Amino acid sequence: MEGELLSALCTPALVVDVDKVKRNAQRMIERCQELGVQLRPHMKTHKTIECADIMTGGSRRSIVVSTLAEACFYADHGFDDILYAYSVPFDKVERCAALSERLDLFQVLLDHPDALEQLKKRPLRDGRQWHVWLKLDCGNGRGKQTGKARCSWSSATACVLITFLLFVVAGVLHSDPEAVRLAQAITEAEGVQLTGVYAHCGNTYNCKGVEQIQAVAQETTSLTLQFMEKLKAIGITCKSSIGSTPSCSHPVKDMAQLSEVHPGNYVFYDVQQSLIGSCSLEDVAVRVLTRVIGHCPHRNQLLIDCGWTGISLDGAGKLPTGYAVIEGHPNLKLLSMTQEHGRVEPISGPLDYSKYPLGSLLTLIPYHSCATAMMHPVYHVHSEGRLLGKWTPTRGW
Amino acid sequence: MEGELLSALCTPALVVDVDKVKRNAQRMIERCQELGVQLRPHMKTHKTIECADIMTGGSRRSIVVSTLAEACFYADHGFDDILYAYSVPFDKVERCAALSERLDLFQVLLDHPDALEQLKKRPLRDGRQWHVWLKLDCGNGRGKQTGKARCSWSSATACVLITFLLFVVAGVLHSDPEAVRLAQAITEAEGVQLTGVYAHCGNTYNCKGVEQIQAVAQETTSLTLQFMEKLKAIGITCKSSIGSTPSCSHPVKDMAQLSEVHPGNYVFYDVQQSLIGSCSLEDVAVRVLTRVIGHCPHRNQLLIDCGWTGISLDGAGKLPTGYAVIEGHPNLKLLSMTQEHGRVEPISGPLDYSKYPLGSLLTLIPYHSCATAMMHPVYHVHSEGRLLGKWTPTRGW
Repeated sequence: MEGELLSALCTPALVVDVDKVKRNAQRMIERCQELGVQLRPHMKTHKTIECADIMTGGSRRSIVVSTLAEACFYADHGFDDILYAYSVPFDKVERCAALSERLDLFQVLLDHPDALEQLKKRPLRDGRQWHVWLKLDCGNGRGKQTGKARCSWSSATACVLITFLLFVVAGVLHSDPEAVRLAQAITEAEGVQLTGVYAHCGNTYNCKGVEQIQAVAQETTSLTLQFMEKLKAIGITCKSSIGSTPSCSHPVKDMAQLSEVHPGNYVFYDVQQSLIGSCSLEDVAVRVLTRVIGHCPHRNQLLIDCGWTGISLDGAGKLPTGYAVIEGHPNLKLLSMTQEHGRVEPISGPLDYSKYPLGSLLTLIPYHSCATAMMHPVYHVHSEGRLLGKWTPTRGW
Repeated sequence: MEGELLSALCTPALVVDVDKVKRNAQRMIERCQELGVQLRPHMKTHKTIECADIMTGGSRRSIVVSTLAEACFYADHGFDDILYAYSVPFDKVERCAALSERLDLFQVLLDHPDALEQLKKRPLRDGRQWHVWLKLDCGNGRGKQTGKARCSWSSATACVLITFLLFVVAGVLHSDPEAVRLAQAITEAEGVQLTGVYAHCGNTYNCKGVEQIQAVAQETTSLTLQFMEKLKAIGITCKSSIGSTPSCSHPVKDMAQLSEVHPGNYVFYDVQQSLIGSCSLEDVAVRVLTRVIGHCPHRNQLLIDCGWTGISLDGAGKLPTGYAVIEGHPNLKLLSMTQEHGRVEPISGPLDYSKYPLGSLLTLIPYHSCATAMMHPVYHVHSEGRLLGKWTPTRGW
């Protein structure tokens, strides 16, 4: 189908605008160069080789993955310097060891002494070391803490209280003495080395606008750097990295003092990121193409051939336009979905069915591109509406 | 890994209890035999060859699918008499024609005269006929109708009002004169034949208990049979079929007058079906295995390695235990998820972390097995906890 128009695709179909992907990737590369910080892009949004090539500028080096399946997939395709940014799972230690022994640089992450014990029980062959990042929780959990507040916060981080429950999932608290003890234990362990300290300012996800994003970015950066100072005071030096697409789309100056950043979603962006203020809707590189397959005048609704298998259930209740933005039709709402059907109705007024004949195309901009991409076994790539080919993501764990 | 225990699996993993699958399938086969109605099982929940074999008793005949990808997948594996129960999509007419010319019996569905025109524009080769089912909406949409009520309803269908928005998506209204006209047009069209009338009592999905399920099943059956009488009065005879796992798990006597039924979810069942009253929780044949990967005592929470990629976001707000039932731990709640993490907390009281060491297994019973299965590229099949092998579903459209 190469060279054909998007309208030649059967629907639903995830389509990727490769020019926007390249632009988003290039901007992040340049932003990090200007800042003087190493970019280690996250692969979890797309999980494809082609997009990873674009994000790494063709180097196939220095990436983050969310699953071991991704790590193996990229290793099999010549990628190296891979950070598996997931609290090292006890059932996967042997597979992690195999990758550590096979690649130049495979890196794992942990936040608990028991995980360190697991690594020590499986020394690597050929004198190799486990490369370990310590996962740091930069205090975002304090909204649910029962103890006393352990650090001071700026006013703009009010959103942290709201978003904590959604976005902060792992890590040892930066203010917990256990964090330093664990870093020290990693350093002292036989066959293991502390490669870095990894924090994720996922609490940027409920920010609105650059000012709030940068306040959270600043806070996470400062807390991470303070933690690095604590380590330095006891003679430990290693890398530091913070992540999240919002903070890396609008970095603060102090992020230059970090070793790395690890955003991922920015290569596609989505409606959520545009609402946060990470990007404009213009920058979103993915769409789900769908067709009108039913008219329901007695309900003032249309049916489309995109159900939750085509766009995911992410974003419920978040948008006035429902589960997605319907491009060019601001008065339409994707109200609800079943497995293979979407129900669309006007936000106000009666539907003019003559505008939406059966078989006509609609274009959905996803609320959350990670969740939408996950539903598709293949992505259709185009440049200016002409199909170029397909990208096939990896799946599973 | 054949013969190994489930605990040998890396997590998250979808596991299927093949004995329960066989029992659920056999009960439905027997229920339909007793009723004297043809069972045409729906494949959309699992999308695998192995499970289709069990549901068809090995015949590989008489199935329903929700996507054309499923239709092709089953056709490629020797299945026939396939009903693609989806308003015939205009972009897929040629692919439908190819299947119609290749199989003994490939059947499509429509609910609009424009779709009939599409079929007429593509006459089948070798004197073959398009086999068409008319999709009937059995009036469940009246909760949103602005016109007068067009039929009478029993009290037990109060739930219809609530559930209409979720479950009724396609079909021409049974009471609309257009429905009979369309049936007639299909009958009269060159190269096309009316095979049957297809209704889906998806509004059983918000029922609670057998009485409500049977009231909706009775209503849908009665309306479908009344419609068949209308057709008969103008000299049209064809098959009739209604679906939904709740109604077919507790059929009413009058369903014997239908030609077919087309349930699907029953082969796995899920928490949703147990709440409806279709089955007991004991009957649910699928689980997601997950492991504890984090302790968050400052939040009184556990982290597990199952995020929304492992169980889906379906069921939000539906259960006191969150997105799933955590088997054997009625006081635990799957509160929220990110892409690869689940956050678990007690419904009340403090967590006893000694019960949940890092690496320990938890078992999630999915709220909606169709949505959960969709997230997994492979299902791990076991009998009494011993692995037997893997089933690989088809995906896409």
